[in-house]
Order: sequence, then structure tokens, then C-alpha cells
Amino acid sequence: MRIPDHIGIIPDGNRRWAVNNGFSKKDGYQKGLEPGLKLLRLCKEVGVKELTYYGFTMDNTKRPSIQTEAFTQACIDAVKMIAKEDVSLLVVGNTDTPMFPEELLPYTEKRQDLGDEGIKVNFLVNYGWHWDLYNLIKSQREGKRKSNIIDSLNSNDISQIDLIIRWGERRRLSGFLPVQSIYSDIYVVDSYWPDFKSEDFYAALQWYDKQDITYGG
Amino acid sequence: MRIPDHIGIIPDGNRRWAVNNGFSKKDGYQKGLEPGLKLLRLCKEVGVKELTYYGFTMDNTKRPSIQTEAFTQACIDAVKMIAKEDVSLLVVGNTDTPMFPEELLPYTEKRQDLGDEGIKVNFLVNYGWHWDLYNLIKSQREGKRKSNIIDSLNSNDISQIDLIIRWGERRRLSGFLPVQSIYSDIYVVDSYWPDFKSEDFYAALQWYDKQDITYGG
Repeated sequence: MRIPDHIGIIPDGNRRWAVNNGFSKKDGYQKGLEPGLKLLRLCKEVGVKELTYYGFTMDNTKRPSIQTEAFTQACIDAVKMIAKEDVSLLVVGNTDTPMFPEELLPYTEKRQDLGDEGIKVNFLVNYGWHWDLYNLIKSQREGKRKSNIIDSLNSNDISQIDLIIRWGERRRLSGFLPVQSIYSDIYVVDSYWPDFKSEDFYAALQWYDKQDITYGG
Repeated sequence: MRIPDHIGIIPDGNRRWAVNNGFSKKDGYQKGLEPGLKLLRLCKEVGVKELTYYGFTMDNTKRPSIQTEAFTQACIDAVKMIAKEDVSLLVVGNTDTPMFPEELLPYTEKRQDLGDEGIKVNFLVNYGWHWDLYNLIKSQREGKRKSNIIDSLNSNDISQIDLIIRWGERRRLSGFLPVQSIYSDIYVVDSYWPDFKSEDFYAALQWYDKQDITYGG
């Protein structure tokens, strides 16, 4: 079976899950922690080399503060939880605005090199597609070419994504790494992220295995 | 019913249609012309204000020349056909490589302004996502901000896309306007583009009408 090297995760539907289950919206985010850990372990099992979680975006921070505080805390907890696993972890996002949580600054420095062991995990925190693209000016100044375009992004430590799995039914990318997702195959799970089931992950892999990868050629 | 202002079309599956119907791959492209015209007229009927067709990309030109010649001719024919309609037409792509057809150069100049009448139609020819993004350096030099990022692309005459409809079953964007598609809802039709049916278009509109547009907020 053809396993994707790099999987991107859009863990959507926490608020809708909360409302459907009689909680207030903000309470949905903590329910996303355990699914995140389960998914990470499944990825390691099947041999995925890199995994990127869509934490929260600069656009998300426009929401009511009771919600922004809740998803920020959930991301802090998630990163600390993942850091305990055998992973090479990096937090990527705009650290120059007040919405970026101090506690996660240490995780934004260069990731530990595990060689071929372990798995690379990227966690997007206060990420913005516009913030990400702005770094392209450097590639111009340095006369870099297409092959280097990812090197020129603020998210330059994150490689091209093979498979994006989005929970929560919506069929859109919502600003998730626009350059790395150029050729990604996109699989949508209709159930909400807190209702994560291993079967959904395996179904996504089965589907990906049947896709024909051409990169436009 | 909530009609999208701007629809992007990825008319995929011409080669697979040709093979399935006993033609050689190259013969599939001409079968995509009539569907393109039907779709344009449907969009005008329902009040879509802007329509963007994914013609061919710089990546596509890596294919065998018998195919590149065929899809280039099909795009030339499609643009000339669309130009006869009541539209404000613009061809967008990299005119600096030999793969850009001379016949279409006149259509790359500023579009005719129809005011509120007619429909804006964009047709991507020899388009490349990397080519498109490279222009961002100008926005930096001029100190532009997020709100201007589209103005800074080579595709700056194409606005943000509300709904992308892709024919041919694949669930990916394949480099289609990475910035304008940031928040697009993506609807996939499993049948191949030459088998276009009005029902597919109406089904996409019905689905889009039920989507919740948040732009991350």
C-alpha cells in the first residue's frame, strides 16, 4: 500500500460537536486532544514520515475571546502532550502578535533531528497564509527559483503535503499552507474531530492509495 | 438561494474520457469545448458575476507534444468561442515561455469593462502557481498589506473564488490559483468534463447554498 510521506490534518468541528452534545462551544476544543494523540500514534504505526496539525490561525483569533482563550489553551496542551512522544516537533506560526502563546515559543526553534527515526510533527499556531507568503520577497532578492519556493516561506520547515484529511464535513482548505497543499489529495471526514475513529484514518489511506499522482505532468 | 459571485472550474478528465470512449488521449480536449460554453451560459442565467476556467498549466506542458499541441489548440478554440459571447474576457498566464500560444496574446490585455452587465470570464493559459506567486515581491517593495495580497499576484485581475467545481473525480486543487482559492468551497463531480451535464452544475449550487461561510472567523 502506498503510504503518504506527509499528512496534513484539519481537525474541524469541535464547536459543532460541543453544541450537539450539550456543551458550550468553547468546551469542544479540549475534546480534540485525545484524537490528536491517537492519530499521531497511528501515523507512526503505518510509517508516515511527517504530520502537520492545523492548530489555530490569525483569522480564528477574530472570534469571541472566550473561544480564542479556549482553543489557545487546547493548542498549548496538545503541543506539550505531543512533545512527550518520540517525535521531532516544531510549532510554526506568527510569534510577533499577542495572540501567540508564550508557553509555545520554545517549540518554535529549530526541530531536533531524529534522522530516519521517529516522525516529524508540525503544529500550526497563530498561522496566517498571508504571513506565510510574505517571506517570498527573500527568495526574490536571492534570485531563487521555483524549486526553492517552499524554502522561501515562513513555513519553510514544512514540506509538500501528500494527503490532507479534514474532519467536520467542510470541503475547503481555509488557508492551510497554500503552497505545500498545491498538489495534496484532499479527503473529507463528515464526522466532527472529537468523534475521531481509527476507521476514518484507515479509510483515508485506502482512498489515497487509489489516487493517481501526476503533479500536472 | 445564495449564488456564488465567482466560480472556478477545473475541467478534468478529458484524456480518461477519450480512452474510455475509444479515442486517443489527445482527442479528449476538443470534447471539452461545448461543455465550457454550456456552463458559461448557465452561470449567466443564475447571476454568477465571475467565472474562471483552468485551461492548461506550465506543469501540463511537460506532457508528450502530441498532447500539449492538442490541449493548446483546444484552449485557443475555447477562448475564441467565449469571446463571441457577451462577456468581459481575460486570458491569464505566463506569456514569456514558448508554450504560450501567440493567437491568445491579444486576450491578455486589460479586459473590457462591462460595468454591471455581462460576466467576467478568466481563462488560465500556461498558468503556473509559482509564476503567479513570484510577483509578491512587488507588494513587499511597496509595503502593501494582507488586504492587497491579491493585487500583488500576476493573477491580480482574478478575485477571490467562492466555489470551485472540479470534474473528473480527483479531490485536489493541482495548483489552481492558490491565493484566490484560500477560502473556496470545493465541489467534485465524479464524471469526466466531456460528459458535463447541467444537473452537475445545479447540484454544485445546491450544495454551496448549504455551506457556512466563515473565512475562519
